[in-house]
Amino acid sequence: MSLDAAATKPHEALNALLSADMDAVNALIRDRMASEHAPRIPEVTAHLVGAGGKRLRPMLTLAAARLCGYTGPYHVHLAATVEFIHTATLLHDDVVDESAQRRGRPTANLLWDNKSSVLVGDYLFSRSFQLMTETGSLDVLRILSNASATIAEGEVLQLTAATDLATNEGIYLQVVRGKTAALFSAATEVGGVIADAEEEHVKALYDYGDALGIAFQIADDLLDYQGSTAQTGKNVGDDFRERKLTLPVIKAVAQATDEERAFWVRTIEKGKQVEGDLEQALAIMDKYQTLDATRQDALEWADKAKVAIATLPQHEIRDLLADIADYVVARLT
Amino acid sequence: MSLDAAATKPHEALNALLSADMDAVNALIRDRMASEHAPRIPEVTAHLVGAGGKRLRPMLTLAAARLCGYTGPYHVHLAATVEFIHTATLLHDDVVDESAQRRGRPTANLLWDNKSSVLVGDYLFSRSFQLMTETGSLDVLRILSNASATIAEGEVLQLTAATDLATNEGIYLQVVRGKTAALFSAATEVGGVIADAEEEHVKALYDYGDALGIAFQIADDLLDYQGSTAQTGKNVGDDFRERKLTLPVIKAVAQATDEERAFWVRTIEKGKQVEGDLEQALAIMDKYQTLDATRQDALEWADKAKVAIATLPQHEIRDLLADIADYVVARLT
Repeated sequence: MSLDAAATKPHEALNALLSADMDAVNALIRDRMASEHAPRIPEVTAHLVGAGGKRLRPMLTLAAARLCGYTGPYHVHLAATVEFIHTATLLHDDVVDESAQRRGRPTANLLWDNKSSVLVGDYLFSRSFQLMTETGSLDVLRILSNASATIAEGEVLQLTAATDLATNEGIYLQVVRGKTAALFSAATEVGGVIADAEEEHVKALYDYGDALGIAFQIADDLLDYQGSTAQTGKNVGDDFRERKLTLPVIKAVAQATDEERAFWVRTIEKGKQVEGDLEQALAIMDKYQTLDATRQDALEWADKAKVAIATLPQHEIRDLLADIADYVVARLT
Repeated sequence: MSLDAAATKPHEALNALLSADMDAVNALIRDRMASEHAPRIPEVTAHLVGAGGKRLRPMLTLAAARLCGYTGPYHVHLAATVEFIHTATLLHDDVVDESAQRRGRPTANLLWDNKSSVLVGDYLFSRSFQLMTETGSLDVLRILSNASATIAEGEVLQLTAATDLATNEGIYLQVVRGKTAALFSAATEVGGVIADAEEEHVKALYDYGDALGIAFQIADDLLDYQGSTAQTGKNVGDDFRERKLTLPVIKAVAQATDEERAFWVRTIEKGKQVEGDLEQALAIMDKYQTLDATRQDALEWADKAKVAIATLPQHEIRDLLADIADYVVARLT
């Protein structure tokens, strides 16, 4: 491997390898996110699409399909479907979180209003169902409609679980599987299904997406306490201030003294935070080394992702998918 | 016809005729609106389902399927699908409208929060796609995913069109077709499609649903200015106060003097309303008799609905569908 190649990030290398497919996906997204009748729709969607994002999820669908030898046209529809579901979820999340920034830009709910975010999200969600229907594959429809329900269920579960100190690692994993991993695993699974891959290969792709999504979300939650604003586009401790229980805190709550427990009850359950609380929270997490333990969990899930696709035939794309699993957690070390 | 039968409302008569099917729909709805993992979901959905509603849309699907001789099980799935799409739309509408009451009870966004309404709406929407996928009919999936996109597009169009005095009767009709008629026409159309009915019969069912939905919405918009609170569960003039341009006002704006136009600009476009404005608005509408003209439009659409199904074979259900078209506008006279 040349130095130049080594310097390329794996998702960028995969993007380059699949560039013709990705161009087709981007063209289809632009075409379908328009609306003849309601000009507010392209305004909002152009704002989101203009903000970029890595398009990791649609790339996973394209990669899975190509890896399984698919030569038809519908992996492009499925990749656009996955991106539309993701974008619809972001629009609704911003309303739910009352967010002001997304990808370093003001959110749609701030620029327009909550109404537009809710309804344009619904529009993109409907468009995603139109796109998947065009593939004519009932297996694909079953997988993606199940994933959508799992995502919504995970988001609702998070509403009540996030501020409840009874939320343990099992419930956290369930929320993460819903709000993040369900779309990753559906994205890779439908790539295999549309290619008519063997059942065990489809299973391997599903397991890869599931583990990658979990690693991705744990890394995200860890970076909230460790990352710089430049790295994450967020401020350190946003989750703490927003009273969102994530893995580093859940691990600290599980070992808390009475005094520490009272601190978590006040700051997370009751949301009565004062100056210096974030520093105190970080000190407690440091005492139990929960940030290290969380990082270990993320690394284990990345390993599971790599083990899952090791059963697939040797292929350039398979190696890049393994590199992506490493990359997702590499930013943590 | 006995006096008793004459006194029965047509949708109640249809409900009685289809009672076994409706029981199956209600059981399926209860089963699928549950959630093992997120207890907030059944709380919110039970509140909505407990509030009743006439279940007119799912009944239309059952009626269309039975009218076309369907004997399989999937009309029940489709009827539940249609009700889930409708309920999801109501949950999101209440967030968009910042409503405090629905069907005479506090709305979910008031009892819980906007977050729950958005996410439980998404959950029901996903559940609707799971249900329609179970029918295995790609035609049905195409019709219902198209209808969902049309509904969302109509809702977004309404956001910008409602307070814009340039909104004419053509744009109003487009909004109404989106936000209301698209689900009525999809409900009747899929009933015919699942029964494998002849193309011209499916077309007739679509046209009936489209015209019935338009008549229904025009009647609703008219009752906002004419009805009593007991009849509509709303206060007279809610649309005016919420700055929603509907047909009676659109017709008055089209004929307005300069002075009247200034009144509409101030009250609707700028939303600067003072005591006595509703009375003034009603006086202008009275001057041009726009409430009468709106009622005529509703009656014409009800007639179109009846003409459309007159092409179907004679059947008890067909007659009840015609009676329902009459009933929707009968409350206006």
